[in-house]
Amino acid sequence: MSVEELETIFHPCSIAIVGASDNPSSAGYFYTSHLLDYNYRGKIYPINPHREEILGLKAYPSLREVEGSVDYVICCLPASRVIELLPECPEKGVKAIHLFTGRLSETGYDEAIALEKEILQKARELGIRLIGPNCMGIYYPKEGISFGFDFPKESGGVGMVMQSGGASTDFIRFASLRGVRFSKVISYGNALDLNETDFLHYLSKDPETKVIAGYIEGVKEGRKFLYVLREASRSKPVIVLKAGRSDAGVKAASSHTAALTGSLKTWETAIRQAGAVQAQTMEEMIDLIISFYFLPPILGKRVGIMGGGGGRTVLSADEWEEAGFSLVPLPPEIKEEIRKRLPQIWWEWLKNPIDRSILPLDRLDIIEDVLEMMAKSPHFDLIVATITIDNPLAKDGYIKFIQKQVEETIRINKEGIKPLVVVLNTGTLGIEDFEDWRWRFFAEEKARLVAAQVPVYSTLSQAARAVSQLVDYYQGREARQAALCASQ
Amino acid sequence: MSVEELETIFHPCSIAIVGASDNPSSAGYFYTSHLLDYNYRGKIYPINPHREEILGLKAYPSLREVEGSVDYVICCLPASRVIELLPECPEKGVKAIHLFTGRLSETGYDEAIALEKEILQKARELGIRLIGPNCMGIYYPKEGISFGFDFPKESGGVGMVMQSGGASTDFIRFASLRGVRFSKVISYGNALDLNETDFLHYLSKDPETKVIAGYIEGVKEGRKFLYVLREASRSKPVIVLKAGRSDAGVKAASSHTAALTGSLKTWETAIRQAGAVQAQTMEEMIDLIISFYFLPPILGKRVGIMGGGGGRTVLSADEWEEAGFSLVPLPPEIKEEIRKRLPQIWWEWLKNPIDRSILPLDRLDIIEDVLEMMAKSPHFDLIVATITIDNPLAKDGYIKFIQKQVEETIRINKEGIKPLVVVLNTGTLGIEDFEDWRWRFFAEEKARLVAAQVPVYSTLSQAARAVSQLVDYYQGREARQAALCASQ
Repeated sequence: MSVEELETIFHPCSIAIVGASDNPSSAGYFYTSHLLDYNYRGKIYPINPHREEILGLKAYPSLREVEGSVDYVICCLPASRVIELLPECPEKGVKAIHLFTGRLSETGYDEAIALEKEILQKARELGIRLIGPNCMGIYYPKEGISFGFDFPKESGGVGMVMQSGGASTDFIRFASLRGVRFSKVISYGNALDLNETDFLHYLSKDPETKVIAGYIEGVKEGRKFLYVLREASRSKPVIVLKAGRSDAGVKAASSHTAALTGSLKTWETAIRQAGAVQAQTMEEMIDLIISFYFLPPILGKRVGIMGGGGGRTVLSADEWEEAGFSLVPLPPEIKEEIRKRLPQIWWEWLKNPIDRSILPLDRLDIIEDVLEMMAKSPHFDLIVATITIDNPLAKDGYIKFIQKQVEETIRINKEGIKPLVVVLNTGTLGIEDFEDWRWRFFAEEKARLVAAQVPVYSTLSQAARAVSQLVDYYQGREARQAALCASQ
Repeated sequence: MSVEELETIFHPCSIAIVGASDNPSSAGYFYTSHLLDYNYRGKIYPINPHREEILGLKAYPSLREVEGSVDYVICCLPASRVIELLPECPEKGVKAIHLFTGRLSETGYDEAIALEKEILQKARELGIRLIGPNCMGIYYPKEGISFGFDFPKESGGVGMVMQSGGASTDFIRFASLRGVRFSKVISYGNALDLNETDFLHYLSKDPETKVIAGYIEGVKEGRKFLYVLREASRSKPVIVLKAGRSDAGVKAASSHTAALTGSLKTWETAIRQAGAVQAQTMEEMIDLIISFYFLPPILGKRVGIMGGGGGRTVLSADEWEEAGFSLVPLPPEIKEEIRKRLPQIWWEWLKNPIDRSILPLDRLDIIEDVLEMMAKSPHFDLIVATITIDNPLAKDGYIKFIQKQVEETIRINKEGIKPLVVVLNTGTLGIEDFEDWRWRFFAEEKARLVAAQVPVYSTLSQAARAVSQLVDYYQGREARQAALCASQ
């Protein structure tokens, strides 16, 4: 499918919700209310033969009876009734239907599979494109289209191709907490007509999308998909989470979106060769998005680490080195600076990673100085600021110390002196912890960092792995480009 | 060192804080105030020649001037002054000194290394045992001894041997959020006298300790340590996190606790052969503690999973199978039950893992029924309840649905029908998220689960890996016992 065609689908002047409802636990209600909540600017037509009005909007007994034209239909009808809807569409100028409707091929029942085929055939005859069935459709905040009531209303640069609706919803909510904002998210379910390849191609050309992430259970056209994936990965990072990897996962994927999942090894090799980035879990996909969304291209793995106190520092050395980074020694000019500022006994002792517990308590301010020195030094490709919840000082002094560290981190990040990530674990809180000053304080500092577009990770290993994959991607892209130039 | 000797050290009738202070950012203040806050029942003697009183307690100019005997000393003096303190100790009957004092061998300076040796020699001459130097000492809530002001006051069954003080503090706080409570935690730093082997041996015999965890940078007596580790692992699970694994980590460990870290491969093999459980990160150690602390022994890997909606279900199949579990099919009797309760089209479609999105919205209650059926079925060794933040229903219905699921989970766990874990991601919250009904609600449900002693993990992979290691441990222990019996 051409990019222009999808561009039209993503910018409808009018949307009809067939099966609109005033039952607040129904999809027909959700989709109607989301268009209102998200300030969709086009016309909204709820279709329901039993209502005059839905959510304050005039309701229509059928699509046919809408006065004007309808660009896009969200279909919440049961599977058995989709076929009757289709013939009404061309008269209204419908370009695409999002079939929220499920209970089709994913059930494994012969009659459902046959019905799904019939829907496709009919839609093709009528020249109508389908998203789904069995999916949540489109979240496009800029256009005011959403499939969640609490997704961010602001836009951002992450575009997503998601086979699963539930996973999309989880993903959007958890990634939003960490500052990610989205251009367009497409939950496409059974991929009966438009599929992962179409959407990936579209997002790769979409100027609103800087980073692409995909959750894929199985692809419809393997060769074409890999071609498009390779092309897409040349222009922007594409992160792929392949689900349906195990025997049980394959069965679950088949029940979920009727996906043919293919051999895992083949997949992994193919995705790697295409230059895409692989995630194994939803959480890893979010970590990768955080790194690609917030960080510039990084082409080296020399890391300077502010390691927090004691054991954290030792583990930060282990975990970053295990992720392929090199903890280069502090260069002489930084040592010289530290020597000037601290009594002789400490400066030789300070190494990369910097162990906070080595510093005299009244000179913890040196941490900010060293952070800046490392950021400005050409010996480092990346700076890591580890903020630990362990307070060496009494509460007030401790709060001031962390706040200063956070401010310095934000400043370095804002001035773009050097790519920088923060490791800060804000804890898995129970409701009573919401009242605890420590967890409130760290939630405040985390919010400040996120608002300032600083990539924040909860753990060392999450950060190290995600950033390592980012460097691998940009190094690989550069190597492929160099090879391409050399061969010409 | 004998268990009895350490038992005496852990139950002092009186404690002196040498270097006690009223500066709230000093260790001398912390240690004094913690004894008061945690209701230490013995006598507390602050020692400070410049004060008459500290925190409302009579202060003494020197240890010698205390009227009664002193069992245990917490020394916050600078390194250079430890030597003068030692001769005062035998007169007062001091059995052990915790040297918070640092800046000794970990600095790498020759004079500091020599001083540390001198301290050891002197202490040995005087028959006094040392914990540390360069460490936080003891957290023993039952006795009212703590090195953090916000550690839990209640006791629990986890004993810890921690080379790093900062890591101990982090660990106690993060693990507490998830319901872990502690018997005794020992932060032992440079291990000049008493070392990891002594404490491990002690905890292995300690009836208050059910699970042992250790953070170790390097061991002093390798052969003895492994012998004790093997013995300890026979009676209770011992989880070991080895830090100082990489080149940079080795250097950091040496700067941190002067540890000689040894080859990683040797370590890993030795720990595995001893029957201990290995963690790679602090977070993994907490996950392992959660599984060993809350779950009974599990000897099989047949898992029944409530997978949440769609993609989450597919990923749960992948991630549990990848962790070595077997997703056995739903047995006929459960299928038959489901058939009775649901219209014919759904029951064949439902598989293990159960995909919530397959269920009709008005029959989501079937989830609790199936959870119970799986729990009661002999076909499963373990049940996983995945609670997702994705709401298929409107807010009120959704809250009721999740609450019922949580209640059922708590009931099954309480009745001990089958080992059960919950996967529930409560998000990495910024301060503004504290006001959001969703995150408040999940923090409430998480708190209820934790209060009911249910093991809760944020992610599928954390849960699957931690429980897999638990099964491996108990299977391994059984196999070793069987081999032992066979050889006799």
